[in-house]
Amino acid sequence: MIKSRAVVLVSGGMDSCVTAAIANLEHELAFLHINYGQRTEQKELKSFHALADHYGIRQRLIADLTHLSKIGGSSLTDTNIEVADADPKKLFHTVKGDIPTSYVPFRNANILSAATSWAEVIGAQYLYIGAVEEDSSGYPDCRKEFYEAFEKMIGLGTKPETHISIVTPVIHLKKSEIVKRGMELKAPFELTWSCYKSEDRACGICDSCALRLRAFQIAGLEDPIQYAQRPDYSL
Amino acid sequence: MIKSRAVVLVSGGMDSCVTAAIANLEHELAFLHINYGQRTEQKELKSFHALADHYGIRQRLIADLTHLSKIGGSSLTDTNIEVADADPKKLFHTVKGDIPTSYVPFRNANILSAATSWAEVIGAQYLYIGAVEEDSSGYPDCRKEFYEAFEKMIGLGTKPETHISIVTPVIHLKKSEIVKRGMELKAPFELTWSCYKSEDRACGICDSCALRLRAFQIAGLEDPIQYAQRPDYSL
Repeated sequence: MIKSRAVVLVSGGMDSCVTAAIANLEHELAFLHINYGQRTEQKELKSFHALADHYGIRQRLIADLTHLSKIGGSSLTDTNIEVADADPKKLFHTVKGDIPTSYVPFRNANILSAATSWAEVIGAQYLYIGAVEEDSSGYPDCRKEFYEAFEKMIGLGTKPETHISIVTPVIHLKKSEIVKRGMELKAPFELTWSCYKSEDRACGICDSCALRLRAFQIAGLEDPIQYAQRPDYSL
Repeated sequence: MIKSRAVVLVSGGMDSCVTAAIANLEHELAFLHINYGQRTEQKELKSFHALADHYGIRQRLIADLTHLSKIGGSSLTDTNIEVADADPKKLFHTVKGDIPTSYVPFRNANILSAATSWAEVIGAQYLYIGAVEEDSSGYPDCRKEFYEAFEKMIGLGTKPETHISIVTPVIHLKKSEIVKRGMELKAPFELTWSCYKSEDRACGICDSCALRLRAFQIAGLEDPIQYAQRPDYSL
């Protein structure tokens, strides 16, 4: 049987790693990494290739969307905006409309547009993205309705013979459930990188580190990567 | 009265020039040019700045979406695919589903995503794009429904306080009507560039030249730019 083809967006973080592990059960995969001028890009790119090697992926594309850093407006790409340390009260109980400084304006639409162009050219019918709606940082472009609207727009903006579905297999999972699902599928967490702040050891205190550490702590599992600090976020 | 702000997508061609002239009637403008690795980029960029100077635009952004040329699949960006000479029978009477080789997969979604990110950061409420549905080359991402679906998706993927409308003022005009509208508004056609093939004199025979020349011929007006050939396309 010829497997259908899927493009997986692989940032190098734990959500995209587990998303790849899930997509790998059903499809022949192509890995897409987006460089949008994020501070920790070199480390993320290393994780991307390590994950691609692990899954034996031949088709890899690095797309430079560096206009997102030119445009600015986010602490992830604009060095004039400080990366906030995690405030657990705010971070784990997101108030609607309270968007963190790490929000990159309309980032996921830029990413999905690039992914759709590639999928159309290589004949992939599925786009996998490891977006997480609940238990995430409250980015507006991580919600299921956004992906549904995007998929509808793809149908109108591509060739008549192109049919591309967006698959968000972890969108309704809590981050601790993503960790557990990844462990079941033997996802190589040791190859991943999530920290927004540094590239040597993960800081342990930025939003992304806090959400990740908390997920492992709640799942009762050890995060295999190195941290400068490992605060207890499970309480 | 404080004018509302609009981002105008300015390729440097005649449609975007007239679109800018229309947007200029109502808004304070910011000009966005997209470099996606098209063959005639240097010439287009020169036209972009000439048009921006003409309209006195301070806010200008050049966004490099060069991943589109990396992805390929189009004669505009992929030098392995030949730019077809215009076949008037096909070009002026587009058959549904007959997509020309110059189609860049999902280009306009990539362009609009970049434009939306910028609009959100600079606080623009309008995005102007000079897409033409009828009388164009039959690209799927030039249709009104596509822009409506995109606008809906913007509402779901941006901050709650962000409200961005996509305006396509020439989408239902014939190209000859765009020429006439531009002349009424004193749009500086002499500064524009449309040819897909060359950067010295416009070739006069690629799809884009043929559509442009025909528009001027039907409008009964002289195209002020230089051509290597000026076939009569009006019959």
